[in-house]
Amino acid sequence: MKTISGGVCAAKGFTAAGVHCGIRKSRTKKDLALIYSQVPANAAAVYTTNLVKGAPLTVTKENLADGKAQAVICNSGNANTCNADGLEIARGMCDLAGKALGISPKDVVAASTGVIGPPLSLDPVAAHIDALAAQLSQTGSADACEAIMTTDTQPKEIALEFELGGKTCRMGGIAKGSGMIHPNMATMLVFITTDAAISTPMLQKALSGDIQNTFNMVSVDGDTSTNDMVTILANGLAGNPEITEENEDFAAFMQALNTVNVYLCRRLAGDGEGATKLLECKVTGAADEAAAKTIAKSVICSSLTKAAMFGADANWGRVLCAIGYSGAPVDVNKVAVAFRSPAGTIAVCENGAGIPFSEELAKQILLEKEIEILVDLGDGSADATAWGCDLTYDYVKINGDYRT
Amino acid sequence: MKTISGGVCAAKGFTAAGVHCGIRKSRTKKDLALIYSQVPANAAAVYTTNLVKGAPLTVTKENLADGKAQAVICNSGNANTCNADGLEIARGMCDLAGKALGISPKDVVAASTGVIGPPLSLDPVAAHIDALAAQLSQTGSADACEAIMTTDTQPKEIALEFELGGKTCRMGGIAKGSGMIHPNMATMLVFITTDAAISTPMLQKALSGDIQNTFNMVSVDGDTSTNDMVTILANGLAGNPEITEENEDFAAFMQALNTVNVYLCRRLAGDGEGATKLLECKVTGAADEAAAKTIAKSVICSSLTKAAMFGADANWGRVLCAIGYSGAPVDVNKVAVAFRSPAGTIAVCENGAGIPFSEELAKQILLEKEIEILVDLGDGSADATAWGCDLTYDYVKINGDYRT
Repeated sequence: MKTISGGVCAAKGFTAAGVHCGIRKSRTKKDLALIYSQVPANAAAVYTTNLVKGAPLTVTKENLADGKAQAVICNSGNANTCNADGLEIARGMCDLAGKALGISPKDVVAASTGVIGPPLSLDPVAAHIDALAAQLSQTGSADACEAIMTTDTQPKEIALEFELGGKTCRMGGIAKGSGMIHPNMATMLVFITTDAAISTPMLQKALSGDIQNTFNMVSVDGDTSTNDMVTILANGLAGNPEITEENEDFAAFMQALNTVNVYLCRRLAGDGEGATKLLECKVTGAADEAAAKTIAKSVICSSLTKAAMFGADANWGRVLCAIGYSGAPVDVNKVAVAFRSPAGTIAVCENGAGIPFSEELAKQILLEKEIEILVDLGDGSADATAWGCDLTYDYVKINGDYRT
Repeated sequence: MKTISGGVCAAKGFTAAGVHCGIRKSRTKKDLALIYSQVPANAAAVYTTNLVKGAPLTVTKENLADGKAQAVICNSGNANTCNADGLEIARGMCDLAGKALGISPKDVVAASTGVIGPPLSLDPVAAHIDALAAQLSQTGSADACEAIMTTDTQPKEIALEFELGGKTCRMGGIAKGSGMIHPNMATMLVFITTDAAISTPMLQKALSGDIQNTFNMVSVDGDTSTNDMVTILANGLAGNPEITEENEDFAAFMQALNTVNVYLCRRLAGDGEGATKLLECKVTGAADEAAAKTIAKSVICSSLTKAAMFGADANWGRVLCAIGYSGAPVDVNKVAVAFRSPAGTIAVCENGAGIPFSEELAKQILLEKEIEILVDLGDGSADATAWGCDLTYDYVKINGDYRT
């Protein structure tokens, strides 16, 4: 398995494009993305569990009922959520994309991200859809990636090459964050493409399984978005024998998918709104996986821990506190905590109590851009990892006046 | 029922004092408080549900096992939590207080608040306990209140006069916040005193019942502290017939307790770390109380809603979002949202969708110091209120480098 370039266009038969159509006020930032497969693809998706759901999710669910899709259309700048006309608009987006691409609107995945509430006008989409379709190219992933960004400061794009049944397959993904991120059964917007041949049920199984250890283990701010969605299109053009059961090829596919998703999770968390650093909480020695996950998420969700990490302050008591209120059963007298980064590793707590440590070294470690918070529960052999970011002035700034 | 002065010394037989003993680095901020009843009092308490518990809570629980207490000792600057010697130190504090007051150490409530982890030295307490006891006075509530403060910017103190069985009774309370506040079955540090005669079981019943609608409905930052505790001492000196059952007097007592607690909740939330405004989410029209409470808390816990309120941005989509992910069953198509403050009331969402509103008026309303977020679910007749605060630059500042 190796990393390659090309993002969502790395896999055979996929092209993408992004343009500025005018949904966003900024005149330069792209705000409309299109991803296209030259042949119909098997498709799977997972969606937010928020009861307030964006209209595009409902339409995408309808369109994926047959397990097939051939294109993705996504705008940023408006979530098309909590509107009287949301469903009509979302279907209108699919109609426009289908017409421009010469495919059925039922084979289009629709997604929107941005402010909740204001009506989304179809006019800018209608005015630019033909130009967008004309721009589809094998080098268009970066443009599509830019077009789905909201407060993201960095694009999130990856592609891999791997083997299935003697054939070279490719998989690529793009994602957008960067606030309202606390996925539950699904997450933010992530679009993954692959030329691997895999049946729709196995594709859904792979996606639903993997997100439990990837996107569902990310939190930026504890707010589960109304528009979270991860979709994957598999067009089979790699020519491998189609995966239809849990065999060796399925395992290899899962490994590729996990690599793509972990990469995107780290990018999403590290570029959380206002974030200056990526936090990775690794829990080991748990009695079971559920406890490990609950504790890892509790630590990376703690506002106090997040603010301490921003200040490079080794205030491990906040980590203990978050472990204690997580809801997972834990013997606090066995807990050990350490911080690790490229600058080194420092143990700060053993058996649930503080141990002497060099504040100077701790500071050096915590001043790095990627911090691991290592928690050992001394209670078993299960583990889990969760990803988050620090809480900063800029998070407040970005969200104190998001709409203007 | 009327408000009076005197805080925890308003009730007959209670005195209090606060001194700077040196646990905190600041040379001026008081850091050791003592509250004393001239006769043994019936006592009740509720404690944090965090599995990581401060040692003072364990010791207080032991000491209140007989339902009696006569004094409270509390330090700020160090939580005496996650230490090998925590229990010994907490018992040492009770011993010192008991000796200075000439009472059994088993009749002392111990509490600590501040940084988690570093060992708490008994030396400063031992050196100042006699001076502290000598300063006990009927005007000492404000000093005690100052001594328990950590990042609080304002003291939180109240006293009431009310009647029970033809006798004038008094009740007073002091509280400290202001971070790591997301109580669960208990809360921050709150000390309440009353001269009402009430049996220990009824006192515990009153306290445990009332906190479900008061302290358990407050959140500053979603972090449930290791040291949360609310205690109440009732010394019976008012001479009313002792309350031993759920009669009219008990109802009057509950009303007084609720008034004290709601006042302290509002003060705690409004003075949350870095807060510039108090947020009060009032949910009406819920199918049941549990749903109303869950939704009210979800809204005031949403980082995105909190940041929007800081920016006086009527971004109601975030309120809808928080309702949707709360976990409570809700028909989002019936939800109405409005904002209210001394500057007016503005409806922003009806039937789950946005309605046109004046951004200018919304801004004026949200620039006030106390904001009500009114949510009607159109689904029944249950209601609930939760209190929180905005998320600000100063929250990040305070918590980015709390220990130095």
